[in-house]
Amino acid sequence: MANDKKMKLGAFFMIPGHHVAAWRHPKAETHNILNLNFYKKMAQTAERGKFDMIFLADGYTAGHGHSLANAQSVGIRMEPFILLSALSAVTEHIGLAGTVSTTYNEPFHVARKFAALDHLSNGRAAWNVVTSSGEVEARNFSKDHHLLHSKRYDRAEEFVNVVTKLWDSWEDDAVILDKEEAQFYDPSKVHTVNHKGEWFSIEGPLNISRPAQGYPVIVQAGSSEAGKELAARTAEVIFTAWQTLEEAQAFYKDIKGRMEKYGRSPDELKIMPGVFPVIGRTKEEAEENKAFLESLIPEEAGVALLSSHLNVDLSSYPVDGPLPDLPSLEEVNGAKTRFKLIKDLAERENLTIRQLYQRVSGARGHREIKGTPEQIANQLQEWFENEAADGFNIMPPYFPDGLEDFVQHVIPILQERKLFREEYEGSTLRENLGLSYPVNQFTRQSV
Amino acid sequence: MANDKKMKLGAFFMIPGHHVAAWRHPKAETHNILNLNFYKKMAQTAERGKFDMIFLADGYTAGHGHSLANAQSVGIRMEPFILLSALSAVTEHIGLAGTVSTTYNEPFHVARKFAALDHLSNGRAAWNVVTSSGEVEARNFSKDHHLLHSKRYDRAEEFVNVVTKLWDSWEDDAVILDKEEAQFYDPSKVHTVNHKGEWFSIEGPLNISRPAQGYPVIVQAGSSEAGKELAARTAEVIFTAWQTLEEAQAFYKDIKGRMEKYGRSPDELKIMPGVFPVIGRTKEEAEENKAFLESLIPEEAGVALLSSHLNVDLSSYPVDGPLPDLPSLEEVNGAKTRFKLIKDLAERENLTIRQLYQRVSGARGHREIKGTPEQIANQLQEWFENEAADGFNIMPPYFPDGLEDFVQHVIPILQERKLFREEYEGSTLRENLGLSYPVNQFTRQSV
Repeated sequence: MANDKKMKLGAFFMIPGHHVAAWRHPKAETHNILNLNFYKKMAQTAERGKFDMIFLADGYTAGHGHSLANAQSVGIRMEPFILLSALSAVTEHIGLAGTVSTTYNEPFHVARKFAALDHLSNGRAAWNVVTSSGEVEARNFSKDHHLLHSKRYDRAEEFVNVVTKLWDSWEDDAVILDKEEAQFYDPSKVHTVNHKGEWFSIEGPLNISRPAQGYPVIVQAGSSEAGKELAARTAEVIFTAWQTLEEAQAFYKDIKGRMEKYGRSPDELKIMPGVFPVIGRTKEEAEENKAFLESLIPEEAGVALLSSHLNVDLSSYPVDGPLPDLPSLEEVNGAKTRFKLIKDLAERENLTIRQLYQRVSGARGHREIKGTPEQIANQLQEWFENEAADGFNIMPPYFPDGLEDFVQHVIPILQERKLFREEYEGSTLRENLGLSYPVNQFTRQSV
Repeated sequence: MANDKKMKLGAFFMIPGHHVAAWRHPKAETHNILNLNFYKKMAQTAERGKFDMIFLADGYTAGHGHSLANAQSVGIRMEPFILLSALSAVTEHIGLAGTVSTTYNEPFHVARKFAALDHLSNGRAAWNVVTSSGEVEARNFSKDHHLLHSKRYDRAEEFVNVVTKLWDSWEDDAVILDKEEAQFYDPSKVHTVNHKGEWFSIEGPLNISRPAQGYPVIVQAGSSEAGKELAARTAEVIFTAWQTLEEAQAFYKDIKGRMEKYGRSPDELKIMPGVFPVIGRTKEEAEENKAFLESLIPEEAGVALLSSHLNVDLSSYPVDGPLPDLPSLEEVNGAKTRFKLIKDLAERENLTIRQLYQRVSGARGHREIKGTPEQIANQLQEWFENEAADGFNIMPPYFPDGLEDFVQHVIPILQERKLFREEYEGSTLRENLGLSYPVNQFTRQSV
């Protein structure tokens, strides 16, 4: 078949919307931010749209301090395991991708919770592996200073390594359940992992059998040098942020090119940049929708958001003037990629502080696409067909209507063009993404 | 009204059954141990029976080593947060009580997950606060030695303390959601907690608003001196194990008597001993059912279970002979109460090792009640009406039929005798248990 490769789509739930002022939008159901029925309806909408997965970001603070600006933003974040598990009970096909940091968690707990979610959902779990970078987060975990960028990656690498050992600690056929012979499991197929590393010392085995997918799908986001190398070796999905086709193509080529040395084929990793779609019945209506969202940003909140992205306090600079001189990339500890992206954008387009916060407060550094459903589809198609993306993480400006509009108006166009599935191909997330079932490292050793 | 006090009932899900050999029982759905539909059906059965709550135990090991005996037992344990959250989406009234240890967890994560579960379930979460005592568990968390008993309680007390601070960090009316004025929350009603203690140093606030119940219901199980004092001060439900009416009455009186000095009324804490009901259409059928369960215990598994409860290797002693000399209570680190209970039982009834493992492998130290549905109801009524219990945590021998039998045959008798509710009284677990809504410590300070 000429065109049997289909794009992969994630429905990135940031509630009540990806735009920083989304919660003020009349259509955003801000009052439902803690209501299960609201999330259930959206999950079922995404499943009706045949999305590969729901994607949840995470963080361990209520905001960036007790400022007025902070109180103008959403300070509540639903916990990913709790939400995804509840949604597993009211959906059947869609994947459930949760962000969990390797910086302030224990591998045993993380391995176990994902294994449990993967079993209960019949193979629909995915783990977005991140590191935590904020000082504020450190102070919620009895730590004075957060780990330096390079140490965070060391720890992350060891963390993922030991989690996969724990998932493998039960071989695929270890559970026997022979009632007559009184054999619940085969003890020769359940293994201690006896991991002793720089960060962790973990005996195992896990107290739950191997996940339904072998491993839940591994998602990563980092785009720094260390992050790219880790992703090329271990990631199965990359969630990333690029503004231009050229940047995205360069990244795509770079990452896929690094995989061979780890014995992996380029198809074993799906690159899915985030996109922020602003849809209108006409191009003009889409522009109006965007302008209306921008008008909802309180000035203090916009400046505070930009300050936090750049790790520089901008509150004393004229909002309609240019950015002050910024620190060099080497001086930045954490979220280096976003820092560079925003700095480059300001320089490239010569933007004021206000213009810049308006630009980043929607897509937060991700690609913004505006227009009619046809135009939205065209922009996705362009990247998909030009080796810039294997799919996209869709970031609706506000919920639930931003998602509903995408499912109702954009998905059918992608399906008509044979760019997106009509039905789920497999029964697990791994199968729908076209990823292979991972070999168990303990089984492999004995072959 | 003469008899308006009703007993409280928990449905203790230990899957596929509370009896150590339950998984071999022909009626136990052992093959469904990872199947959400199986748990969903049982949760809905418990809710049909108007149980106050589903109760889940927990632990962080796959068993007690790589022995044959271990492979004869259930080595898989569903993770409480993941399971309870999934069940919250398919039930409406029943409480969701999960065990989470204070020894190997972080207060911020625990506070947040319970808050999220409490919100999504509309006020049905409960936290069974325990400490971890096993060496094996320590080795799954990069620790060489587990904490001594007294230190575990120190840490537990500080842990609960900081978790309640985090739950209170958003006052009840902190969330405003004023779209016009751009006020998501009132910054004067969201508080850092700035906790600095021996074990934890946590800034806060939490990144989710105060739980629907103020606090999820606090359950405790420890019956040691330190555990009793902590419970009298902070617990709202006690899950405990007693064999005789006299012991249970003494404990009931002891605990309730300790509450006044903390400014609490005896009604603010519900004492719910575990009971293991073996039901038959006749007394003889119940006895046969019990004998059949006992016949399913592999000798090695029985000895291993008893060894682990007593922390003494019994495998070299004749199984039909008496227990060897045991260490004194002071030498035992962890689960002291269960140790004493089993030792006392062996001495009181002069039991052999085999008889003893048969006795403890069902109820594991809890009260075993056998007989017709009428006789089961009588035994519950006796304790309930004689100040030995405010209710019971029901531990069916095997699932789902052990639970189904209780709901179908015992609950109607309790209802007929006006000992148990016909309908849920309130909309939250706290309301159904007759517990008051906790005052927010930050709000209280400003009055």
